[in-house]
Amino acid sequence: MSSNNYYDITEWNTGNPYDDIGEVINSIITDIKNRQTSNDVNEGGKPGAVIYIPPGDYHLLTQVVIDISYLKIMGSGHGFTSSSIRFNTSESDWANWHELWPGGSRILVDMSLEDGAEESAGAAFYIARSGDPRISSVEFADFCIDGLHFVDNGSGSHDPENSYLNGKTGIYIASAQDSFRISGMGLVYLEHGVTIYNADALAIHNNFIAECGNCIELRESGQASKITDNLIGAGYRGYSVYAENFGGLLITANNIFPRGKSSVHFTNVVRSSISSNRFHSFYPGMLIMENGCTENLVSSNHLFREREPWAPMQSYNNGLDDLYGLLYISGDNNSIIANHISETIDTQYITPTGATPVIIRVVSGKGNYISGNHIVATTEASKVQEAADASACFSTQVSALLATNGLEVLTVTTVQIEATSQQNTVLDSGTDGQVVIDKMLNAFRATPTPGMAAEGQR
Amino acid sequence: MSSNNYYDITEWNTGNPYDDIGEVINSIITDIKNRQTSNDVNEGGKPGAVIYIPPGDYHLLTQVVIDISYLKIMGSGHGFTSSSIRFNTSESDWANWHELWPGGSRILVDMSLEDGAEESAGAAFYIARSGDPRISSVEFADFCIDGLHFVDNGSGSHDPENSYLNGKTGIYIASAQDSFRISGMGLVYLEHGVTIYNADALAIHNNFIAECGNCIELRESGQASKITDNLIGAGYRGYSVYAENFGGLLITANNIFPRGKSSVHFTNVVRSSISSNRFHSFYPGMLIMENGCTENLVSSNHLFREREPWAPMQSYNNGLDDLYGLLYISGDNNSIIANHISETIDTQYITPTGATPVIIRVVSGKGNYISGNHIVATTEASKVQEAADASACFSTQVSALLATNGLEVLTVTTVQIEATSQQNTVLDSGTDGQVVIDKMLNAFRATPTPGMAAEGQR
Amino acid sequence: MSSNNYYDITEWNTGNPYDDIGEVINSIITDIKNRQTSNDVNEGGKPGAVIYIPPGDYHLLTQVVIDISYLKIMGSGHGFTSSSIRFNTSESDWANWHELWPGGSRILVDMSLEDGAEESAGAAFYIARSGDPRISSVEFADFCIDGLHFVDNGSGSHDPENSYLNGKTGIYIASAQDSFRISGMGLVYLEHGVTIYNADALAIHNNFIAECGNCIELRESGQASKITDNLIGAGYRGYSVYAENFGGLLITANNIFPRGKSSVHFTNVVRSSISSNRFHSFYPGMLIMENGCTENLVSSNHLFREREPWAPMQSYNNGLDDLYGLLYISGDNNSIIANHISETIDTQYITPTGATPVIIRVVSGKGNYISGNHIVATTEASKVQEAADASACFSTQVSALLATNGLEVLTVTTVQIEATSQQNTVLDSGTDGQVVIDKMLNAFRATPTPGMAAEGQR
Repeated sequence: MSSNNYYDITEWNTGNPYDDIGEVINSIITDIKNRQTSNDVNEGGKPGAVIYIPPGDYHLLTQVVIDISYLKIMGSGHGFTSSSIRFNTSESDWANWHELWPGGSRILVDMSLEDGAEESAGAAFYIARSGDPRISSVEFADFCIDGLHFVDNGSGSHDPENSYLNGKTGIYIASAQDSFRISGMGLVYLEHGVTIYNADALAIHNNFIAECGNCIELRESGQASKITDNLIGAGYRGYSVYAENFGGLLITANNIFPRGKSSVHFTNVVRSSISSNRFHSFYPGMLIMENGCTENLVSSNHLFREREPWAPMQSYNNGLDDLYGLLYISGDNNSIIANHISETIDTQYITPTGATPVIIRVVSGKGNYISGNHIVATTEASKVQEAADASACFSTQVSALLATNGLEVLTVTTVQIEATSQQNTVLDSGTDGQVVIDKMLNAFRATPTPGMAAEGQR
Repeated sequence: MSSNNYYDITEWNTGNPYDDIGEVINSIITDIKNRQTSNDVNEGGKPGAVIYIPPGDYHLLTQVVIDISYLKIMGSGHGFTSSSIRFNTSESDWANWHELWPGGSRILVDMSLEDGAEESAGAAFYIARSGDPRISSVEFADFCIDGLHFVDNGSGSHDPENSYLNGKTGIYIASAQDSFRISGMGLVYLEHGVTIYNADALAIHNNFIAECGNCIELRESGQASKITDNLIGAGYRGYSVYAENFGGLLITANNIFPRGKSSVHFTNVVRSSISSNRFHSFYPGMLIMENGCTENLVSSNHLFREREPWAPMQSYNNGLDDLYGLLYISGDNNSIIANHISETIDTQYITPTGATPVIIRVVSGKGNYISGNHIVATTEASKVQEAADASACFSTQVSALLATNGLEVLTVTTVQIEATSQQNTVLDSGTDGQVVIDKMLNAFRATPTPGMAAEGQR
Repeated sequence: MSSNNYYDITEWNTGNPYDDIGEVINSIITDIKNRQTSNDVNEGGKPGAVIYIPPGDYHLLTQVVIDISYLKIMGSGHGFTSSSIRFNTSESDWANWHELWPGGSRILVDMSLEDGAEESAGAAFYIARSGDPRISSVEFADFCIDGLHFVDNGSGSHDPENSYLNGKTGIYIASAQDSFRISGMGLVYLEHGVTIYNADALAIHNNFIAECGNCIELRESGQASKITDNLIGAGYRGYSVYAENFGGLLITANNIFPRGKSSVHFTNVVRSSISSNRFHSFYPGMLIMENGCTENLVSSNHLFREREPWAPMQSYNNGLDDLYGLLYISGDNNSIIANHISETIDTQYITPTGATPVIIRVVSGKGNYISGNHIVATTEASKVQEAADASACFSTQVSALLATNGLEVLTVTTVQIEATSQQNTVLDSGTDGQVVIDKMLNAFRATPTPGMAAEGQR
């Protein structure tokens, strides 16, 4: 349009973006590579390009394959709407709906997938490059990737649109990369939202990634990245945020809502930080640090777990019981400081029956520091289990959230240090009766109780 | 422009955007609805559109009414400048000014308002839709909404441009909505900046909303939203941020400066989080949680209150006295952890005369946890009260901020637990003499003092 | 393009943007000023304009001079890639590289600089205006400023590309300004990235500013600003973030990686906040608050210091020894709360030899509050010092980060209060043996140790 390096998909000379935006974008990438052949800036260099996707519905039948740096793909609308509410509403009502689908600059991922295909084959955008340097500065901004439908997972489910399975991925980055940005996107009804291997200086910022099987997965290794200021919420069987073998990850300012089998799941993540987020979950294990997670900080977060209030989803959960720990920690020298943790659940829904739920559970490792956390546990208010129509969903959720009057205190173990873990420090995170800990092998100071602390200071 | 779903207001075939941008945008919305009539994606679907506002001064005489999802309205410039400084500068100086008004992609809200009109009638952008689904993914980005003037409030004020009243609202969302985004905007001199009813998954991010009567008001109910990374500052009579009956709100990374009768005001807000913000205020009651606020977290914030240093505004305040509490809390199980709170004021300005100012005040409810807060109180440095010219405003404010040398310690009550509240926990947030609390009904541990704690540990 | 106030540099009638983008932008600014001459909005007013830089390589030979408000300069690609890795890779390998230089909407700063020129003369973008009002709402978004090369600093260095010196600055704002925004930018290989005097309501958000001599410098004075959500990392001799005489600065959600002689350096900064960041450094003095820094909050940050793992940079450091303090504090009433601090270093690399490294060091001032910090110190794992090729750089760094197995505890002083400082409070931030403090002049409570605290409570 305005220059050789600005492409509007609706004006390109090859393919039809409404029929197959993948063919169009791949053709544009080929054009960029044909034009940008020299590293000599005086011959134009290799600055990359921007591909613009105006608002519209674009089918994607062909996977987009990106192997050039400095490519920005941008739209003008994240276009998120809840497909889950729609699919859990009687189809007879749809005729009256204003609109049925997500919108904005929307890519409809409806390529055909072979049975048993590789996960990467189901990606709308596939990024990989070998050799040096690592591929850099690819950016995705302000458009929508819609997986359209979940499907029967082979088990003959009566409920395929709630399976969170369809073999589709929004953005799949297969090779080590540097300084990528994903911002302003809307991702919905994908089995995997964003899957990234070997990230460095990655920024995932201000996106809406929800109603996906998994939302963000950082695999294999990575460093010095940030996941900030997103709205995120996976399905009941997947990760909202997952990272493995990562150092220096910053997760802050996110609002991560249900479901998600976990809100954040770390495996062998070190020297990373989870701070100033709001987490909301329906199951135990909402924050998991396992397999040698070391020297991480979890600070100033608000965590809230309640029972699923929405009828269509009440038959699903992540399979963990209330002894697992709302926060599950395996590793050394982590810090859990200054968080607020709320759990509200009726005793009849606690598993195993009669168990005392565990909030923070340290299963192995040493030197963890758990200080200044406020843990509030109540029995559930009698929540109205309304019919699964669209407007009821919102009001059900809000009324559940607001139902705090007349709650009774629920007995929980605020911190449990397993015998396999020692040399931990637990301060002001539960009264003497709420903390299970070997006080000779770990340092402990109970949260004072009325009348007691006044004495303790004298 | 580049496609049917991209509209540039300066190129549209109906109306003149410079005379009345409202007429132009409404005409565009009508066109979108005329073209997007089918939910069948193969007939084009309902992807919405983007409306682009290039930099320019656009009068708005007709209210924009939005009742379609996936509409993005975007400009290329937030255009904020201080109108307050200008209006408090002698008009005779204006002739020498480089520019007088805000700019960028600027909408001048100058429609005529009837006396006694509904608040919503004064909105530049009015969004409402009944039926299902809730309206989704409307986005406002990177333009300026300028209310132009405040007016005499009927009291014959000598000072109408400082009234913060004009009946105008920037963005008014009347019906329940999902996944809206407001980002990069500049809002100035509106009685209400952004007013939103029944928000879900709302993102208000990286805006400049200041010199408005009220900046952000979340009304009726809402859930799972975020107000992040904004510069905000209301007038002396309104809210910088207000929310009611809300669950799961995340307020983080904001710099909320004066004035604002409060920085954040919550009423019946639950399980929400205020973390890692910087708040600056001129009055008591800078953070208010009332009417059953429950299980909220206030963590890692910096709060600073001083006396108004700028002459033109020194006659105004929010009417609260220093016994009200800089933080006022009514509700159960809230957490106030790891904050820094500074107050500096000369004793002559304390009200009632001779009172000991209260910093954190819990007036009712139980189970609140106040731990690890550092509260610093000093008498005010002798601040130069400079004349109200534009450049003096900045230097006055900065010198007031920097005036920390030679401050004397001011005696304050760091935490006051009223008798109507009990079962609270107060730790390390004030010395024994600074905290007013019934130690038999609440848990208390004083911040140690020199010489004492060393003993206490042995 | 779409209106008089939208300019595309590739379509302008004067100059050639590929040869000298500076000449083109200055010509556009002249055109804006020629057209926007009246403050009367009915004559068009002074709304400013947007200048668009499509992806491409643009030489800058002429400094851009900005003296109008409401100018937005935007591109479509931050274009960062590591020039440091390339310059530390054998040039013989370059022939096989996919690309050699940064990209996106990229400005190549290659103007000629006189010896001994003023720092401001080396700025690609120079912003200044005298008179009233302060220049407002200039915005820089989504493009790349590349300083191209560092040079011999006159010392006959064998290693000029690692000198971090070239006299070039990306954005230099010389006069007091209001409501500027810098977002989405990529800055690389500049001696100074962003240098700003007398900032008010500044937002530096979501940028990638790295491999610069200094990244962000806020000079002379300033207030009410935010540095949020950036990826930042200066060279070994400069500041990642510097501020002086500032009040109300909010630094949050940043991932600040090495090197940087400091991650954040404050001098006479007051009532400001550093929270929820991730800092990574190779030297002592990673956070410095000096010259009367008062009432600042440092909370919920993750700080990690290790020894430089990358061979080409191991000969450089910031000259500070391990007694200086990883956090160095001089001033009154600051708060250091709820942080995690990790240091890992082999004893052979500690300076002075045999010293016990100091983590938090308060050198002067009174009333500082240091509470609830978790400090972890270990000897270094045997890090593989791989050859300096590009891919090895990433894997070296990641493996260093992940090398936490089998680390031995390193003895450190977690907090040291110098005799020149008193009336400080140190709580739960080190055991009795780890804290150097005069307990009669300061308040102290040791982090409990196993067996001890259980007793202490009774």
